[in-house]
Amino acid sequence: MNFSSKTVENAVEALSGFPGVGKRSALRMVMHLLKRPKAEAEILAIAINKLKTELQQCTICCNISDTEVCNICSAHNRNHQLICVVEDMQDVMAIESTAQFNGLYHVLGGLISPIDGIGPDALNIEQLVKRVEEQGSGEIIIALNANIEGDTTSFYIARKLQGFNFKITTISKGIAVGGELEYADEITLGRSITNRIPYEV
Amino acid sequence: MNFSSKTVENAVEALSGFPGVGKRSALRMVMHLLKRPKAEAEILAIAINKLKTELQQCTICCNISDTEVCNICSAHNRNHQLICVVEDMQDVMAIESTAQFNGLYHVLGGLISPIDGIGPDALNIEQLVKRVEEQGSGEIIIALNANIEGDTTSFYIARKLQGFNFKITTISKGIAVGGELEYADEITLGRSITNRIPYEV
Repeated sequence: MNFSSKTVENAVEALSGFPGVGKRSALRMVMHLLKRPKAEAEILAIAINKLKTELQQCTICCNISDTEVCNICSAHNRNHQLICVVEDMQDVMAIESTAQFNGLYHVLGGLISPIDGIGPDALNIEQLVKRVEEQGSGEIIIALNANIEGDTTSFYIARKLQGFNFKITTISKGIAVGGELEYADEITLGRSITNRIPYEV
Repeated sequence: MNFSSKTVENAVEALSGFPGVGKRSALRMVMHLLKRPKAEAEILAIAINKLKTELQQCTICCNISDTEVCNICSAHNRNHQLICVVEDMQDVMAIESTAQFNGLYHVLGGLISPIDGIGPDALNIEQLVKRVEEQGSGEIIIALNANIEGDTTSFYIARKLQGFNFKITTISKGIAVGGELEYADEITLGRSITNRIPYEV
């Protein structure tokens, strides 16, 4: 691309660092900002800076938080005996939006993936063990992706938490609600048969 | 979306103001920034701020520029008698990347569009007339989009520039290079027949 302005070029360069944003999309973003009031660009710049200056890790669940203890962990009307182990903040948001869960979370910050050089020590697993130790009893729901990394991490955590007075469960896998049997892959369909549940009338 | 952090929510809000960026993409951008070094977010914030503080309009061609006169208008090896009228900076970049044009530009900053309330006065047309008056002679190439707004603006400009010692031309319309006749729309194909050119052997 032939930029006639270095300032525009720098902005395009910085914006195209985002995943899924190419030079062309970045240029469209720049043109959009140029047309908008100055205050809008300032608000954006401040919001981006604050991501790095204001955010911290919740000392209990390790989720990204504005405060030392996040608003989920500090909520009194939630079940503190129930801890749902998830990969990251996006999974917390996904589960929260179901409105089906009233417990707390534990955010691992990733999944075990030897191929990417991510071992158990890189994740917030020790904090989870410590949390379980201090709490004494309750239930851990492991809610990780249904792929190799998720399964490996689930297995590792389940082993680590043996011997505590904690029930360990995992989210059910099976065909999606609204899904059709003929289009489900064999492994999913097989699992949904193996893990069949009583039909409630 | 249930955000557990106000800082994240603000950043998602600000980023989803971009065209084509929804809340989900904005959240992905935020998660990306959170994983990257602090310096990267700072560079991005500075680049965005500079778009509003450092950029100005070139006093000759009205293009976005880092300096009072842009680097195209101040280049001595370009043909200053030839002025290509375009809508915006992206069109300048598109024509520059063809490496087929060695003249200067005039950036209108939009197209006449009564439906959007954009009249001729909102565009840099007066500056173009003044430029033509001062220069005395040369050629104007009108290179605007081949749609209603582009045609209206071309017509308006061509009328405005009558009576000057300037040749007024427009870019040719026709089937795209590599395009197939059977897939071209009738109007384009019709125009490419009407505006046929001598075959050079």
